Parts: sequence; C-alpha cells; structure tokens
Amino acid sequence: MSQAHNRMRTWIANRRDGASLPLVTTPLPGAATVASLMKPLTALALTSILAAPTLAHGGEQGAKPMATHESPSLEEVRSVSPALERYTTGPLLNGVWKRPDLSARDRGLVTVSALIARGQTVEMPYYFKLALDNGVTPAELSETITHLAFYAGWANAMSAVSVAKDVFAARGVEIDQLPSAEPELLRIEPQAEAKRAVSVQENVGPVSQSLVDYTSQLLFHDLWLRPGLTPRDRSLVTVSALVASGQVAQVPFHLNRAMDSGLTRAQASEMLTHLAFYAGWPSVMSSVPVVKGVFDARHP
Amino acid sequence: MSQAHNRMRTWIANRRDGASLPLVTTPLPGAATVASLMKPLTALALTSILAAPTLAHGGEQGAKPMATHESPSLEEVRSVSPALERYTTGPLLNGVWKRPDLSARDRGLVTVSALIARGQTVEMPYYFKLALDNGVTPAELSETITHLAFYAGWANAMSAVSVAKDVFAARGVEIDQLPSAEPELLRIEPQAEAKRAVSVQENVGPVSQSLVDYTSQLLFHDLWLRPGLTPRDRSLVTVSALVASGQVAQVPFHLNRAMDSGLTRAQASEMLTHLAFYAGWPSVMSSVPVVKGVFDARHP
Amino acid sequence: MSQAHNRMRTWIANRRDGASLPLVTTPLPGAATVASLMKPLTALALTSILAAPTLAHGGEQGAKPMATHESPSLEEVRSVSPALERYTTGPLLNGVWKRPDLSARDRGLVTVSALIARGQTVEMPYYFKLALDNGVTPAELSETITHLAFYAGWANAMSAVSVAKDVFAARGVEIDQLPSAEPELLRIEPQAEAKRAVSVQENVGPVSQSLVDYTSQLLFHDLWLRPGLTPRDRSLVTVSALVASGQVAQVPFHLNRAMDSGLTRAQASEMLTHLAFYAGWPSVMSSVPVVKGVFDARHP
Repeated sequence: MSQAHNRMRTWIANRRDGASLPLVTTPLPGAATVASLMKPLTALALTSILAAPTLAHGGEQGAKPMATHESPSLEEVRSVSPALERYTTGPLLNGVWKRPDLSARDRGLVTVSALIARGQTVEMPYYFKLALDNGVTPAELSETITHLAFYAGWANAMSAVSVAKDVFAARGVEIDQLPSAEPELLRIEPQAEAKRAVSVQENVGPVSQSLVDYTSQLLFHDLWLRPGLTPRDRSLVTVSALVASGQVAQVPFHLNRAMDSGLTRAQASEMLTHLAFYAGWPSVMSSVPVVKGVFDARHP
Repeated sequence: MSQAHNRMRTWIANRRDGASLPLVTTPLPGAATVASLMKPLTALALTSILAAPTLAHGGEQGAKPMATHESPSLEEVRSVSPALERYTTGPLLNGVWKRPDLSARDRGLVTVSALIARGQTVEMPYYFKLALDNGVTPAELSETITHLAFYAGWANAMSAVSVAKDVFAARGVEIDQLPSAEPELLRIEPQAEAKRAVSVQENVGPVSQSLVDYTSQLLFHDLWLRPGLTPRDRSLVTVSALVASGQVAQVPFHLNRAMDSGLTRAQASEMLTHLAFYAGWPSVMSSVPVVKGVFDARHP
Repeated sequence: MSQAHNRMRTWIANRRDGASLPLVTTPLPGAATVASLMKPLTALALTSILAAPTLAHGGEQGAKPMATHESPSLEEVRSVSPALERYTTGPLLNGVWKRPDLSARDRGLVTVSALIARGQTVEMPYYFKLALDNGVTPAELSETITHLAFYAGWANAMSAVSVAKDVFAARGVEIDQLPSAEPELLRIEPQAEAKRAVSVQENVGPVSQSLVDYTSQLLFHDLWLRPGLTPRDRSLVTVSALVASGQVAQVPFHLNRAMDSGLTRAQASEMLTHLAFYAGWPSVMSSVPVVKGVFDARHP
C-alpha cells in the first residue's frame, strides 16, 4: 500500500459501506471549471461523509445529561443549503484536502488548531475524528489541546476537552496512550532562547514582570520542550491558531520558528489556502502581508 | 395592510396571544429621556417576546440526542438581569429595530450575519426566526449561511446549519424553496473583476498562488454570481460579518462594492448603529475610521 | 478568620469532602522550578475541583430539554490530557489565582468578563460559581452581564444568561438580590463626560449621528451610571473584555478611566498576567504596547 494511499485510506471516517474512495490527488483547478472539482461520490457516501457514528455516545455518561456533540450530517447541510453541501463535498473535502504540498495529516492538525482557536465546538467532533483517521495520533491531538490552552485561552482548550473526551472514549483511547503530565523535556536551544528572552524582557518587562516570567518558565522552558509534538508540528499548530484568530502580530516570530524547525515555504503557503476555508477568507487575507514579510526576509 | 405594517406584522414571532403590537417607528431619542424609550409592552408580550416556540423541536430527530437550540426567554433574562430585559425590550427590540433608514428585513439580515460571523449559536434560533418573520426568505437565509462559509469560516456556517435545520423543519421549509446547488449564475462585471483580479494577484500571488486561484474561481466567478442573494444584499451580509468579526482591513473593498450595488450611505450608517448592539460597541467603533474613509472618498 | 482566608475560603466551590485547602499565597516562581508549583492536592480534591455540582440542574426545567451546562471535570480533563490537568490545578488554580496584587474576587470578575467577551459558554458554569464563591456577588455578576451586552455584543450577554440562570436557580438567587432595572443613577462627572462627548462627536458624528447619540444616552448617561458595579469594577470588566477580544484600540480610554477610578498599576499589570491564561498569550501580548503607552503617559 503506497504511503499516499495510507494517508488517505480512512479519508472518510464514517462511511458505512466500506468501499474505498478514488485516490485522486486533485491539482489546483487551473483552467478547469469549478464544476469539474465536484466529482460526485456515491449517494451513500454523501449522506455519511459527515455523519457522526451512532456509537459515539454510549451509556458511559450515566445520569449526566447527554452531550450533543454531533456535527451536522451532510443530509442536514443539504436541508439548509444544497450549495453548501456541494462546496463541502466537492471543492473542500474532495479538493483542498487532497491537494499536494500539505499532507492530509498536517491538514488535520491545521484544521483542529483553527477550530480550537475559534472555539468552534459544533464542528470539532467531525474534524477531531477526521484528523485521527488521517494520521494525527491521539497523543498529538491531546498535546495540541494542551498547547492551545496557552495560545488560544484556557476555555478554548476546555471546550476541546469536552468534545475530545467523547471521541477518545468511543475509540477506546486509554490514558497510557496520552503524553505524560511530566515527561522528559527536549533540550532547549540556548541561543534562540536567549534572544527571545531578551526581547520579551525589553518589551513586556516594563508592563508586567510576572508575564515575562511565566512566558519563560511555563511556555519556553516547559510547554515548548514537551516531546508530545515535534517542534515543527508545535509551531504549525501555533501559527494556524494565530492566523485563525486574527493575531497577526505574533505570526512573524512563530512562522520563522516553524520554518527553522522544518516547515517548508510550500507547506506554509498551502496552510494559508487551507485556513481560508476554516478561518474564513478575511482572516487569511489579513495575514498575507505579514507572511510575505517573513518569506521575503528569509529569501530576499 | 401598509407595507410598514407588513414588515412589522410578525415582529414578535412567538407571541401566543395573537394580539398585535403598536407599530411605532421610534425616532432616534433626541432630547427624550432614555426612560421614554422603554414603553412597557403588556406583561404577556414581555414574557413571550423572546420565548422559543414549544413546537420548535418535534419528534423528527428520532434517537439522536435532543438539540438544545433555545434562546433564553425574556423571563429567563429577567431572572438574571432585570436591566438587560429592559434594555432588550425597550431600546433594542422596540427602538433600534424600528428606526428608519434600514428596514426590519435588512436588520434581520445584518443581525443574522453578525451572529454567524461571531459563532453565537445561542441567539441564532431567536434571530433566525425574527429575520424570517420580517421578510428575509428561507432562500436568502440559506444563501447567507453559504456565503459566510467563505467569509466567516466553514465551521461558523456549519454551526448555523445546526440551528437553521431545526428552524426550517419547524416551519416546513422544503428543499425546493432553497437556492439550487448549481443555479444559472449572474453575469460578471468584467471591468471591476479585472481590477480585483490584478490587485489580488499582485498582493497574494507571491505568498500563495492557490489562494489567488480559489479566490477567483470559487469566490468571484462562482459564489458572488449566485442569484440567491442580490449583489447589494450579498455585500451587506459581507460587510456586516467583517465589522462584527473585527476584520476592518477588507471593509473598504466590500463597502464600496455594497454602495456600488445600491446600499445607501444612510443605510450603511444605520447598519453600524445596529451592529453596535450585536457586535458590541468596540467592534463598531474600530470600524468607524475605515467607514469614514470610504464615505469621504466617494463624496469628498 | 483573616481576610485572606475569607477570600480563599470557598476557593474550590465543589469539593465534597469539606476539607480546607492550604492557604498558600504562591509568589511568582522566581528561581523555583516549575515542578515545585504543582503541589499535588489530594486525589479527591483533584477529581472534584472542577466538577459541577450534581444538583445544578434540578427538575425545575420541566419539559424543556436539559441544558448541558457542565464544564468538564478534572477527571475528564485528565482523560484527554494529563498535562492540561497538571497545568490547571498547579500553575493556574493553585498558582496564578493566589498571587498577590489582584484579589481572587477581582480575578473572578476578570475571568468572567473574558469568558463572556469570548463567548466561552462551556467554562462559564465553573467560573461563574468560582467568582461567586470568591466574593463577586450575584448582583455584580448580573450587572457584569448587562454591561457586556454593550461592550461584547448582545448575543454574548444572552449566552451568559443561558448559563447564569441555572447557576442562580441552583443557589436560590432571587430577583430582589439583583440590580433594579431602573435604579437611582450615580452622578455624572461633567468635565470628563464633556471631553468624551466632544471627542466621539468629532470622530463618529460624520459617520453615524445615531451611534453618537446612543453612545451618550444609553451608555454614558445610563449604563455607566448604574450603581450595580463600582466605577472601578465597571472599568475593570470593560478593559478585561477589550483585551480578551483583541479590541486594543479602546484600551487607552478605558484603562485610563479604570485607573482614574482607583485601579492601581500593579492591579492592571496583574490583570494582564491573569488574562494571558484565559484569553491566550497572543491577545495579551498584543495589548502590551498599548498598556505601556498608558502607563508611560500617566507616570512618565
């Protein structure tokens, strides 16, 4: 089985008929008409592509009220907007997600980060599962949520917990599959860290020394050194969250860090295209000049 | 029945006693005291003005967990803040919504756009119904949701779907009342489009050519040409979402486009006043200098 | 009982074993290791610290669908991320919340404001209760929600209502404990108000006179004069919401107003540190230069 096949094998998490989808890596629609992007899947696939599995919520919640963590099914989307169903199954799920330059696994990480940063709980169940089905491990999803507590706010992470707990329970994810609370940390890069620390001290120190200290101790000497995500993935998660929540001021530092850790320019570029759909065109367009500045400074 | 009456006839969607409300078009409170804005409605109207209809959720959802798509009733608002109930029924619903310069129908469209852009699902049931009751058609609400998938992010649109499906089901809206997935498109304006394309190519091309291409093919050669909303309404929806989500950088392009398509300066101005309540004063105040720039450039 | 004890006495709202927690006022971790911050609580406290009381939802909702207003318990957090549980119970709840310079009561107000401004309903039940348990009165929580209708948008306030109504009901809060809809207003400061009015007229008048008029009449001659919050607290709520929602443009006016009303520089500084956790590092870092400008202008 090719690696590409492997990446795509569980493209659609909840298909019930077991048939595999064609593994078309859809190129960017050049002169092609948009209509050609929307190759119809089978009717069964259409109605199940977004459907949450019926087993997601078992009796394990006892007397607590049932959570309503169900993303709308494609059938429900169609009952409100046939056009939105078309855009979803065609250009988005069967187009953007299969484009080269960014793997479906990375797209899962980017999408999940955008949803958490934007507090979009309704779509979390579907995309948490889609990310897991495309190669993001439960440990990586766990660590992404932890990371975004600091970069998107504690409540955003807790909202993600309220969804992920059910997804993990339904898939039998046990605590020993998750990153440890206190793992052996990665080695810090002394030069980069010294430069960062000086800059934050100068800019933030006069306003809040405790914010400077927490930034060093909790973030850069702890969170960022956790091995649960590779440095490249941790930075990809961070940049995705920054763009998705309109926080462009921190994009230069974190995008440079991402590219220093191995994110290619083609991947960063494709990340923006992907985020246009999940954070909306305006958020991404507002980040373009800032990203251009980073690209230009690295390769003038 | 006068048109004004018609617009207002179902002002309060869920009143149970069938009595009509006085059709006062409240002018801006000049020297009037604020207290005078808050003409008490009948007690019955007060308790039912925000109440969701008890029939909203039928047995049609089968074994799925019941959605809890209920906006708080006025009685519930009062149980937390009698003042907020007063501001809601007085200055807002019986004041702002009845002001001239922007019809209640347009206010419905503006409000719905703000809620979707801000992901405010709790209030969507009430305002989706209020918009429909004041002249926004189900087709227009459907198309607004589709449009905002691109301008506020896919998950925001899906969250709106999760509410609208119940509202549509309760009102018996059938799929043939909704815009087609692939309708005959409006004619493109070649000159304006050429200018836009050149500008996006120059600014975005060096960062992401695929983003340039999707912007042309999916947005301006497809979405924007769909007949489900008039160009003026589509731009009104876009500008409302931009202001409501703090994306002021794109306001000049889209506000100019809105005014080119027939949105008057008085309507744009009133849209801001309306949005102050639904997006909060700070979002609107931040957009004021940008809107002023557009007004000044059009009529120096 | 010391005042500090009093402030902390109900630190953890929902502990079931009645044991008191050590009243350590944790200083900023200077040379201390991060690990030392995370003194383990007892296992029982750990599992119950975030647990919603089982009595929160009684049979009082009749035939309406049960609301699912439950913040995730610590046990649920651990089932998704043991590290996030560690950061929550250690550095955050047992660290930040006990730091000097900002009382636990003020932190409750700041946190609640951030959650409402960011529409984070999932965490509202836990933090509404935590605020009430640390000295924020039901009247003050009610007034905070009312205030943020104007500063964070109507729907954000209504989402808070949908949670607060259950919290108030479970605690037997009656309407006579809440601020009146039309109380006797505080005296206006004529000089400061005249200056504000001139500035808004100049900047906003050319775009929307009605927005100018509502700003005066509803906000500064009505809402801001309500006695339900002290002017200092009202400004603290406002600034917290502005920082938490990324609206830095209005921070100088409102932070100066807060400090004119008694908020100290140390408290403002500590508010930023606290908000870093609840609004995410990026939002707070983006506000730092603006806050620095205010500090410098007041004490050059």
